[in-house]
Amino acid sequence: MRATFMYGAGDVRVEEVPDPTIQAPTDAIVRVVRACVCGSDLHPYHGMQASSEGAPMGHEFLGVVEDPGSDVRTVRKGDFVIGTFAFQDNTCEFCREGFQTSCVNGGWYGAGGVGGAQAEALRVPQADGSLIRVPVSVDSDLLPSLLTLSDVYLTGYHAAHMARVRAGQTVTVIGDGAVGLSAVLAARQRGAERIILMGRHRSRTDLGREWGATDVVPERGEEGLARVMELTGGKGSHVVLEAVGHRPAYETAHGVLRPGGVISRVGVPQYEEAPIGFGSLFGRNATLNGGPAPVRAYIDQVLPDVLEGRIDPGRVFDMTVDLEHVADGYRAMDSRESLKALVAP
Amino acid sequence: MRATFMYGAGDVRVEEVPDPTIQAPTDAIVRVVRACVCGSDLHPYHGMQASSEGAPMGHEFLGVVEDPGSDVRTVRKGDFVIGTFAFQDNTCEFCREGFQTSCVNGGWYGAGGVGGAQAEALRVPQADGSLIRVPVSVDSDLLPSLLTLSDVYLTGYHAAHMARVRAGQTVTVIGDGAVGLSAVLAARQRGAERIILMGRHRSRTDLGREWGATDVVPERGEEGLARVMELTGGKGSHVVLEAVGHRPAYETAHGVLRPGGVISRVGVPQYEEAPIGFGSLFGRNATLNGGPAPVRAYIDQVLPDVLEGRIDPGRVFDMTVDLEHVADGYRAMDSRESLKALVAP
Repeated sequence: MRATFMYGAGDVRVEEVPDPTIQAPTDAIVRVVRACVCGSDLHPYHGMQASSEGAPMGHEFLGVVEDPGSDVRTVRKGDFVIGTFAFQDNTCEFCREGFQTSCVNGGWYGAGGVGGAQAEALRVPQADGSLIRVPVSVDSDLLPSLLTLSDVYLTGYHAAHMARVRAGQTVTVIGDGAVGLSAVLAARQRGAERIILMGRHRSRTDLGREWGATDVVPERGEEGLARVMELTGGKGSHVVLEAVGHRPAYETAHGVLRPGGVISRVGVPQYEEAPIGFGSLFGRNATLNGGPAPVRAYIDQVLPDVLEGRIDPGRVFDMTVDLEHVADGYRAMDSRESLKALVAP
Repeated sequence: MRATFMYGAGDVRVEEVPDPTIQAPTDAIVRVVRACVCGSDLHPYHGMQASSEGAPMGHEFLGVVEDPGSDVRTVRKGDFVIGTFAFQDNTCEFCREGFQTSCVNGGWYGAGGVGGAQAEALRVPQADGSLIRVPVSVDSDLLPSLLTLSDVYLTGYHAAHMARVRAGQTVTVIGDGAVGLSAVLAARQRGAERIILMGRHRSRTDLGREWGATDVVPERGEEGLARVMELTGGKGSHVVLEAVGHRPAYETAHGVLRPGGVISRVGVPQYEEAPIGFGSLFGRNATLNGGPAPVRAYIDQVLPDVLEGRIDPGRVFDMTVDLEHVADGYRAMDSRESLKALVAP
């Protein structure tokens, strides 16, 4: 079959590899119907050291179960499924506490002998915990929105969930990428009164406005910070949803935070150390949280909103490529020509 | 009157100064009945640059209102009161949200022309928000426990409150100082099932055990971390209450945290930057919070527990000095001979 690998910064290749096979009775082989390129894929696309061994790419997918392992109980051959961007058994103690991305039997696609989803097919470990059957046909108009439940929309949702966004609050969203826009939509769904979107790409912030942003701040750094403080009457934002992952975004986040406020991060941090002392978090009783979204915890609850058309998170996709041209999707997202690229193998 | 000043590391002096006077109609002058030395006073006691100008010391007190300003409505001359360790109007937006230490009209004792509480008397700004009348006599046996509501017990309480400690959880408390022991007591009051106290001073950890600690870990660093992980079956602690303020304590905190867990800090951080990336907080969806305790938010609720004898947080005091000998209190706390020194002017 054909599958996508990254060999270094900017070097994405589609190659012929052996078809995936069942390795444990809890595995399932899934034929990929839709995949996509993630904002987090752009981090190695910028910085990966050149390597003779390619890294399998892709972790978001819709597919059809081709071959369920002998212990798989909840999906059958032929079922149309959403795959969560990380796999989990959904039964361990951490899963039951709602943190499936820390599952003791879980893991990440593209690592440890598990392939990626930008491929014709992939092996899904812990299939019972990691595949969710969806009652639609493989050519449904809902595919783009259903695909966002694999990662991007529910990552924005996770940010708002961890921050416990509630009615009447002011929420600042940092980043107008697909996750940032998803965070706007999720904050609106939770009743945020005012949503300040920090981003400078007009076509993106326009979608953000449609999804609930009440204000757009294109300025960055000190200037952006001053603008948000001005918009909030000098008080700052109850909640900041940080959907970028670079340290300047974090610095902005604590700079615009109201006393007692919450910074929820879902942009994968590209830094390890940052300020958390008296002058940044402690002095104002700030809360910092967020992390890899346990989308499995949310998917059952949000699925009806997509199936019944109350939300349309699939609008983040503005480009479609076939698998052979997946590198075009990376390039277009990297140059900001595309917000998010759908892959239709 | 006599009042305490610090002139540099280890240099605490009691000096004659003019009596405090009303400067705003919302002030009150309070005669100090009991004060004490705070663990946070030991930070400048270790590291303050020598200065020709002394810093007024002390921020925890019980007292009697001597002279209420003309706009003060809730206390009268002769009232016996608890003073909160920071002052606040208790009416601004941030106060109403429960973060009185960020009051727009608030501030700290010993700074900006406001004196300290290790003195015969002090001026209390925003007296209506900062003084709480208590229906006991000035020679009540409850004075030590009432004094802890000025800061130390409610700082431990704040840690447990911010972490939302709940029944059935495992809570690790880092630090066997007066705040750490208070955090043990507060976690127990909230129903924590298992409380692991990290501390190495036997007399202190014994009090911790009386107050609810189920396990004591004297080891520090990697060894202490391994011990807590072993005690929790490799899963880590739902909550860590960090009551030290040095960076190694924070490193231990994220090291022993369970996925989805909460680190609540009340030790004033003696560092600004620290790890918060994928390997420390983000990867496991950790929450970090805490800060200066808004004791005003909790005092009405906890006061009955003290007045009716359900808790006895005043047991943290194991030494009493008069005002002239306050430096002995600093010395004894610094050398760990004393857990916390009460000052009876």
